[in-house]
Amino acid sequence: MLTYIYVIAITAEAMSGALAAGRRNMDLFGVALIAFITALGGGTVRDMLLGNYPVTWTQHPPYIYLTIGSGLATMLVARFMHKLNQIFLILDSMGLVAFTIIGCNVAIKLGYETPVIIMAGITTGIFGGILRDIMCNRTPQVLRHELYASVSMVVAVVYLLLMSQGVSDDINTLASFSFGLALRLAAIRWQLSLPVFSYSPGRWGD
Amino acid sequence: MLTYIYVIAITAEAMSGALAAGRRNMDLFGVALIAFITALGGGTVRDMLLGNYPVTWTQHPPYIYLTIGSGLATMLVARFMHKLNQIFLILDSMGLVAFTIIGCNVAIKLGYETPVIIMAGITTGIFGGILRDIMCNRTPQVLRHELYASVSMVVAVVYLLLMSQGVSDDINTLASFSFGLALRLAAIRWQLSLPVFSYSPGRWGD
Amino acid sequence: MLTYIYVIAITAEAMSGALAAGRRNMDLFGVALIAFITALGGGTVRDMLLGNYPVTWTQHPPYIYLTIGSGLATMLVARFMHKLNQIFLILDSMGLVAFTIIGCNVAIKLGYETPVIIMAGITTGIFGGILRDIMCNRTPQVLRHELYASVSMVVAVVYLLLMSQGVSDDINTLASFSFGLALRLAAIRWQLSLPVFSYSPGRWGD
Repeated sequence: MLTYIYVIAITAEAMSGALAAGRRNMDLFGVALIAFITALGGGTVRDMLLGNYPVTWTQHPPYIYLTIGSGLATMLVARFMHKLNQIFLILDSMGLVAFTIIGCNVAIKLGYETPVIIMAGITTGIFGGILRDIMCNRTPQVLRHELYASVSMVVAVVYLLLMSQGVSDDINTLASFSFGLALRLAAIRWQLSLPVFSYSPGRWGD
Repeated sequence: MLTYIYVIAITAEAMSGALAAGRRNMDLFGVALIAFITALGGGTVRDMLLGNYPVTWTQHPPYIYLTIGSGLATMLVARFMHKLNQIFLILDSMGLVAFTIIGCNVAIKLGYETPVIIMAGITTGIFGGILRDIMCNRTPQVLRHELYASVSMVVAVVYLLLMSQGVSDDINTLASFSFGLALRLAAIRWQLSLPVFSYSPGRWGD
Repeated sequence: MLTYIYVIAITAEAMSGALAAGRRNMDLFGVALIAFITALGGGTVRDMLLGNYPVTWTQHPPYIYLTIGSGLATMLVARFMHKLNQIFLILDSMGLVAFTIIGCNVAIKLGYETPVIIMAGITTGIFGGILRDIMCNRTPQVLRHELYASVSMVVAVVYLLLMSQGVSDDINTLASFSFGLALRLAAIRWQLSLPVFSYSPGRWGD
């Protein structure tokens, strides 16, 4: 199930990357590259952090084609995108949650400790979007709007908690995924957000 | 031959980095660091992506001195730079193409599949410039102007095609290099560019 | 001693990250993440560059809690921060110097050559701050203000010089640390800075 959702997720992420590139008037190549990095960048950073070589996508060329193809296809459907807004928010949310669970599993298999497993889940979930924003020269959106990165953290914690209670992996995945998706959709629906920290410059660290 | 061009290339890339740092009013150290990252960052990202340790430049200290030295020297000749514009565009183009071929060869030696080899070539070719622009807080130029990143991709594809046809490596390198350089110079001369994707904000992915 | 200073240093760096996040109006999660990356990002980049797996902080969960906790606590004390300005500048300077020496030692243990050891020290010293600024979408401050990155380089060189003279490691660490801290504090006190390179755009590399 997770693989199926993963494929949907990287497609949605690639499209989000293509739209961000379009806002910066990038050319075809830029669109394809940002789509690729948005979709697969989170897993890449995770693999490089954990020393998990070879990096996952290098062993799965279809993912490369899928993300680049999705990015380019986005240019054709961009004009209808605002009508599809709801669907994409849902796909993107599914991606966030699925990425997180997958990321946790990679770190678990490598034998890392609990806090590192959680960091690996979060990294997989949000770093594609962070890299997208860095490459498009804007402040990472995932750290400012409604609950997003924090959903990733909550999913990772819930997943590890259920695992520690001996819940079977299939049920755990289903439960964590459903819970995370519900939380994210609720956050979108009711604009739930974490408190924001606003600080005006002094000299130190400026 | 490729080694010789490589040395010219990292020098040209280092100078491009130094000029970008100068636009941000960085100090001597910043100029040296950005020069270094622009010249050797593409290969570094490739090595880290492919798990190719130790990273190439760590085994070749002269490259460190050369790029830092070139960056600092650029400050002295910056006032004449606009007169040397043509020459630098050519050196930079040679670098792009040489970097790409070198990057492909690294991935080939490590036994990666074709699409990963192409990505490794492109990464080596363009990521130094992307890191330069990220560190100077601007949208990556290589994804917006005349054919640049796409030349890197075309060179990688041509190189692999000729290789698959059993063309000897020397001839292949010469042919791919010449073709890529001609394509890039033609793009500069006639302002060839890929179609640009312009997208105005909606909510999703914003 | 270095461990003790290291703990102070990552706390100071985490706070600097939290303040930068606050300037971008990030939410709680963003503050925690930027604090973590600012404090531990330099060492992470060093480990990934040198192939030093597993990355240091993944083996020391307390560092994760400390940096995230410090980041969040900063929000509570931010209003008093301008009064504590002097203290934080000193803590931050101690961190810069301690990070540098620690980074050199990691590269030495892995058997890298002198220029790579110096680069490893500098990377550990300054890359947390660079990542902080990239993620907050501003030009890296460490490359523009009073002597900062250059202090890191000088400390690395002094440390290696004394080591090559057979000075015992304890004395060397103490001497290099004191010298570096004095240099940095002098730079703050008398606004010492490196010459700045200012370059106005021409076409090449633009």
